[in-house]
Amino acid sequence: MPKADSNSDPLPAAKSCRVALIGFGTVGRVVAKILCERPHGPLRLAHICNRNVERKKQSWVPKDVIWTEDFQSVLTSNADIVVELIGGLAPAEQIVRGALQAGKSVVTANKQLIARHGPDLLQLASSRGCQIEFGASVAGGVPVLPALRTGLCGDRLHGIAGILNGTCNYILSRIENARIPFSEALEEAQARGYAEADASEDLDGGDARAKLAILALAGLQTRVTPESIRARTIRTVDAVDFDYAAELNCTIRQISRADLQEAALFAEVGPSLVPAISPFGRVQNNQNMVLTTGKYGGDVAFLGAGAGGDPTAVAVVSDLLFVAQNLSTGSRPQPPQQLSTPKVSCDFETPWYLRFLVRDRPGIVAKLAAILAAHHLNIDSVLQKPGYDKTALPFVITLEPCRDSLLHPALEEMSALDFAIKPCLCLPILR
Amino acid sequence: MPKADSNSDPLPAAKSCRVALIGFGTVGRVVAKILCERPHGPLRLAHICNRNVERKKQSWVPKDVIWTEDFQSVLTSNADIVVELIGGLAPAEQIVRGALQAGKSVVTANKQLIARHGPDLLQLASSRGCQIEFGASVAGGVPVLPALRTGLCGDRLHGIAGILNGTCNYILSRIENARIPFSEALEEAQARGYAEADASEDLDGGDARAKLAILALAGLQTRVTPESIRARTIRTVDAVDFDYAAELNCTIRQISRADLQEAALFAEVGPSLVPAISPFGRVQNNQNMVLTTGKYGGDVAFLGAGAGGDPTAVAVVSDLLFVAQNLSTGSRPQPPQQLSTPKVSCDFETPWYLRFLVRDRPGIVAKLAAILAAHHLNIDSVLQKPGYDKTALPFVITLEPCRDSLLHPALEEMSALDFAIKPCLCLPILR
Repeated sequence: MPKADSNSDPLPAAKSCRVALIGFGTVGRVVAKILCERPHGPLRLAHICNRNVERKKQSWVPKDVIWTEDFQSVLTSNADIVVELIGGLAPAEQIVRGALQAGKSVVTANKQLIARHGPDLLQLASSRGCQIEFGASVAGGVPVLPALRTGLCGDRLHGIAGILNGTCNYILSRIENARIPFSEALEEAQARGYAEADASEDLDGGDARAKLAILALAGLQTRVTPESIRARTIRTVDAVDFDYAAELNCTIRQISRADLQEAALFAEVGPSLVPAISPFGRVQNNQNMVLTTGKYGGDVAFLGAGAGGDPTAVAVVSDLLFVAQNLSTGSRPQPPQQLSTPKVSCDFETPWYLRFLVRDRPGIVAKLAAILAAHHLNIDSVLQKPGYDKTALPFVITLEPCRDSLLHPALEEMSALDFAIKPCLCLPILR
Repeated sequence: MPKADSNSDPLPAAKSCRVALIGFGTVGRVVAKILCERPHGPLRLAHICNRNVERKKQSWVPKDVIWTEDFQSVLTSNADIVVELIGGLAPAEQIVRGALQAGKSVVTANKQLIARHGPDLLQLASSRGCQIEFGASVAGGVPVLPALRTGLCGDRLHGIAGILNGTCNYILSRIENARIPFSEALEEAQARGYAEADASEDLDGGDARAKLAILALAGLQTRVTPESIRARTIRTVDAVDFDYAAELNCTIRQISRADLQEAALFAEVGPSLVPAISPFGRVQNNQNMVLTTGKYGGDVAFLGAGAGGDPTAVAVVSDLLFVAQNLSTGSRPQPPQQLSTPKVSCDFETPWYLRFLVRDRPGIVAKLAAILAAHHLNIDSVLQKPGYDKTALPFVITLEPCRDSLLHPALEEMSALDFAIKPCLCLPILR
C-alpha cells in the first residue's frame, strides 16, 4: 500500500454534511455507493427518498440512513444538502424550491429545471444563503460546468459549442461508419438502449437546446429560454450526406452552439458539417464534447462520456464536495453573477451545404443556380457523385458564407420546384 | 452544521483583494491587463515587481499601482495575494515561502518549484491559514488542475496521461505532416520561437516530467519527484518512424503517463506510438492534452493551448479569483489532502515498436528473432518497407505486450550486433 506521509500534522476532521438523496435510480444508486465508500469524508448519506422505497432498499446502505417515500419529510429534516435526481419539472421544481427555502443547499442533475428556472433558483439560493449546483445537468461525464466557475473564470468567454446529445451522436456516427439509413441507425440505437421509443426530444434537438441554455447561463452569463433557441432535427440526414460530406473532408454531427456578439446571442442546435479531422469530427458513439472560446484563452475542449449512471454520479458527488467545502469552512456563497438577457438569433453567417433530391432531367442545376443568383448567393461548389438512382438523385451545392435569413427565401423557392422530391436539406458548414 | 446566515439580502459588495505581481514578462503583462480591465471585480492590482522596473512601466496601469524592484517590500506590504511569475527555483522559492509565511496566499505558474516543493508548500500554506494555487504550472491553457479539485473530485482517479510539452508536439507533428528530418523540424521550431536554442529540457523530457509530477500530486494524491520519473528523449525519432507508425495506423507523440496500481506508481515520459485516430493522435502543433481515467467517470479529455502568455494568464487569473473568493467569504482553506509516497516504476507492460537501422545482409531478421525468442518475447509483426538505402536500412519489429524490464536485456544484445548502425529505437505502443 502507498504510505501516507508520516510528517503530516494530524488534521482535524471536518464535520460531515448530511446528504438527502431524492431519486434512487441509476444515478442515485451510484451516488449512494460512492458516499458509502467514503465513510470518513465530508459527506454522510442521511436520507434516501423514492417511490416504492421498500423495493429499493440495499444491504450496503448503512443502517442509520432513513428511507422514505415522503419528500416533505426530507425538506423538514436536518439534512444539509438535498440531491434532486428525479428529473422533469414536477414535483422536482417544488422539491428544489422547498429545499432552498428551508435553507438547504441543492445539487441537481435536472436539465429541464435548470434550463427553465436556473436564474431564479440561483437567485433564490443566494437570498437564502445557500447554494444550488447543477454540474450533472449537462454532459454528465464532462466536467465543463465546474470548469466554467474555476479554470475558465479568468477568461471572458464569447463562444460555446458542443456535442451535447449522445443519442444523436451515436446515430450519426453509426451512419458515418456503416453507411446505413437513418431509420436503421435509429432502430439500432433503440435496441441498444441509447435511444428511447419516442426519441423526439433527442432527435429534434429539445434535449440539446436545454443543455445549451444552461451552458449559456453558466459560461456566457446570459438568461435565455430553451424555446428561444432554434432546433433542427437530425431525421433528415441520411447516409448519402456522409458521402458528400466526405467529399468536402467533413462529417456530420449534431452541434449546439452559442456565440455572444454584442447585444445578440447567436444560438442554434442541429446537424452541421464539421471537418473530419476537427475535435468535433472525431467524437464517436455516445460521447459528448464541449468547446469554449474565450478572449484570452482561445479554444478549450472537454471530452468525455455524455451520460450513464457512473459518470453522472461523479458530477453529482463533485458538486456535493464543493457545497460541503463551502458549508464546512463557513464560507458564504458568492452572489450569482449579473446576467444579461440578449436577443436570441439563429441568423448565423456561415457557408452552407444544400442537398437536393430530384427526379433527374436536363437543366436542374441551371434552374437552381439562377434562383441562387437572383438572391445574390454565391455557389462554392456543385457535387454530383455517380451511381445514384436518377429517379431520386441526390446532389449537393455548397454556398459561400451568407446569413441564414438571406438563404431562407431561396430555399423555399427551390424546394417548391416540380423536380424536387423532398425539400432541400440545408446544413451549416462549420470551420 | 455551520450554516450561512439567511438574513443576507441584499449582499454587500465583496471587499477586493490586493494583488502583487512579481514578474512582469509575457504572462505577467496579460494578467495585469485582465485585472485592469475589471476594475470593479474582486481583484485589485496593487504592486508590480520586476528587475529594471522603470523600463517596464505601462501607461494603462492605474496610477496607484506601486512599481518596485524589491520583492522584500512586497512581502511586507499589505498585499493579500502574491503572484509569482519569475520561474525557476531561486529566488522564486524564497519569494513563495516568504509570502506564505507572511500569511499571504500565493498563485504561481512555476512548474519546477511545484514539482519539487509542492507538497511542502501546500503544507506551509495550510499551517499559515492561506492558500497556494498553481493551475498555470501545467498546460497553461488547459484547465485540468482546477478540474481535478472540482468536477473530478467526486471520482477516484487512477490514471493520468498527457501531451504536456508543446515544443515536442510541434516538432513531432511537423515531422508527421511534412516527413522532414528531426533536425530540420527542430530548427524550424527554434526559428518560430517554439523551441529554445538549448531545447534539452523540452526534447529530453525534463519539462514534461515536472508537469507529470504535479498532475500526480493534484490528481492521484502522490508525492513523487520529477527525477524519479524516467524520461526518454524524442531526438531519436525520425521521419521513417512516422512511415512505419502509419503502417500500424499510429502516429508518434511525446506522452507523459502515470498509473496508480496498488503500491506502485507506473510513470514515464517519452515518445510513444498512439493510434492515429485517438484523441492523442489528433493533437497538432503546440497544443496540449490531458486525459484522466477514473474508477467511475472513465476517461475525460482536456484539450487546449499548451502555453503562451494569454492562455497562461487566464489560468493565473482563474486561480486569483478562486483565492479571492475564499478570502472574501472568510472561508478557511481546506487542509491539503493526505498524500501517498508510492514506489515509482517505469516497468509498464505494453506492446513495443522496435526500429532497427542496419547494414543489410542476409540473416538479420533470423538473428534478431533468435535473441527475442531466447528472452521469451513474442513478435507481433515484422515490417520492412521498400525503397530505403540498404547500407542504412530501417526496419521494424513489433512485440506483443511484455514488461519493459524483460525487454531491456534483449535490446542491449540486439544493439551490440555488428550489423547495427545505431542502437535499436524502442517505443511503447499505447492503445
